Amino acid sequence: MHQLLEKIIYPAFKNETLDVRHDGAVLNINGSKIAFTTDSYVVNPLFFPGGDIGKLAVFGTVNDLSMCGAKPLWLSAAIILEEGFPINTLAAIVESMRQAASLTGVQFVTGDTKVVDKGKGDGVFINTSGIGIIEKDISISPKNVKPGDHIIVSGDLGRHGMAIMSAREGLEFESPIESDCAPLWEIVSDLLENNIEIHCLRDLTRGGLASALNEIASSVRLQIDIDETLVPVSDHVKAACEILGFDPLYVANEGRMVVIVPPSCSEKALEIIRSHETGKNAAIIGRVITDNPGLVTRRSAIGTQRILDMLSGEQLPRIC
Amino acid sequence: MHQLLEKIIYPAFKNETLDVRHDGAVLNINGSKIAFTTDSYVVNPLFFPGGDIGKLAVFGTVNDLSMCGAKPLWLSAAIILEEGFPINTLAAIVESMRQAASLTGVQFVTGDTKVVDKGKGDGVFINTSGIGIIEKDISISPKNVKPGDHIIVSGDLGRHGMAIMSAREGLEFESPIESDCAPLWEIVSDLLENNIEIHCLRDLTRGGLASALNEIASSVRLQIDIDETLVPVSDHVKAACEILGFDPLYVANEGRMVVIVPPSCSEKALEIIRSHETGKNAAIIGRVITDNPGLVTRRSAIGTQRILDMLSGEQLPRIC
Repeated sequence: MHQLLEKIIYPAFKNETLDVRHDGAVLNINGSKIAFTTDSYVVNPLFFPGGDIGKLAVFGTVNDLSMCGAKPLWLSAAIILEEGFPINTLAAIVESMRQAASLTGVQFVTGDTKVVDKGKGDGVFINTSGIGIIEKDISISPKNVKPGDHIIVSGDLGRHGMAIMSAREGLEFESPIESDCAPLWEIVSDLLENNIEIHCLRDLTRGGLASALNEIASSVRLQIDIDETLVPVSDHVKAACEILGFDPLYVANEGRMVVIVPPSCSEKALEIIRSHETGKNAAIIGRVITDNPGLVTRRSAIGTQRILDMLSGEQLPRIC
Repeated sequence: MHQLLEKIIYPAFKNETLDVRHDGAVLNINGSKIAFTTDSYVVNPLFFPGGDIGKLAVFGTVNDLSMCGAKPLWLSAAIILEEGFPINTLAAIVESMRQAASLTGVQFVTGDTKVVDKGKGDGVFINTSGIGIIEKDISISPKNVKPGDHIIVSGDLGRHGMAIMSAREGLEFESPIESDCAPLWEIVSDLLENNIEIHCLRDLTRGGLASALNEIASSVRLQIDIDETLVPVSDHVKAACEILGFDPLYVANEGRMVVIVPPSCSEKALEIIRSHETGKNAAIIGRVITDNPGLVTRRSAIGTQRILDMLSGEQLPRIC
């Protein structure tokens, strides 16, 4: 996927805005800054513990806007249905989208529906694009990351990916793993209102923490070093990862982000994040250094340092 | 589809902006007006005489923005690939998107790619969402249509739908029917610069002229009466429609629109539209009256008046 983007798609559409490789584009409308983002959701199964494709399609796009520091305002919904898809299931998904939009204060303002023949789709695919407004004079971008910055994760990792995989594999635990699927704007908004100097935000979706940190390190040409003993992972997720052979640092999340801030305000930022239900397990897990530009490293409990590489190959298809 | 939208989707997302039921939403950003629109493209076949899914995905969304009177500026591209889709075909489609964007002066600023397993998609589906800016103090909307207004179509009808159907059915004509797939912003921009008082614009995609006029008539509670002898249709399209059993007034176009203007400026508007290559076959085909609110009627060569109803059932699936 990464190679596909790098080799085929990015070069064709090369321009200043796209080159930032953020979760969304920041655009200027007569002096007002807006963020614009898009995502298609093809998650399988459509319903999973803690969420469904509709909720995911709203929170996912709302989170991408939030990662630009933009207050999410408007969404589009474009639905591709496979012929014969049950109308009641569609109604349940649409209702879930409505609730998620209402919870996050965004409005669906435009949409599209297409039907494809049976066997040419898979139930339903949903695209949401979103527009948000950047109200403060801020610049949140990988390029603002500086040596010494602290890396905060906003909660425990791996729930979403493991919820999906457990559902697919029919794994049963004493209590099922619920997806972390949640909107992040309230936390971001709270950080901004408290004048936390946010250098970079990134939600930890496909490819998880490892991919997000690698993209940032590679983009800013600095090293990111994390202490893996500090990364919050629940016992349930640890167990599921061991059974299924996954590394939680690579597993997708849908309600988690990294927040990169100067060391002077990392404790205050952590306190603010932890004051939100979604952020109660937040932790400072590492820092930005200059030794090996572009590299991400992980220190283990016994102090060994290893490279935390970009994910090679496809780990979890159709996770979102 | 219409019923699906009316019964399941519209009620769930009900709000002021969506209720306009335009091709795009008009939104206010600190006093600046923008248009926002989305469409998924699932056309089959991916390549057809006169175009391909990539070109369609750019021009289609650019046209939806144009129908709001908005200068198209930025696009998102979200691609859903079926596993095993040939990389060279993808590269050709992406190149076509690049060229179409360059031709219309829009930039791709954000994107997404998902891969679904073999047999769970159909090659490639593309969603494009778009943002445009409404620079003049104009209001283009069905609700502005008034009794006496003239109905102009910007060119001959039915080429796109018949190009797709001929390709699918393996029909061969002396010269193949080429899709009318084209951007409409230059014509709209020219009309606006010449201060033509445009009441409503609507591109004639799925469901063709008949559906567009029915939506407008129903929305503004007025009757639209057209003279079918004045509707431009090429001989090739007429022949293909006869062979395949279609009515050209219901066939999809991808570079045609209706322009609804007061009678005082319809001749000047027609002249401006005809001065563009895409609009050279434009014609005034009817007018807005008050007799039967919500109805669209067609007068034949012998003067009989019949109802031109909304399309019932699915005529041409996966036409765009």
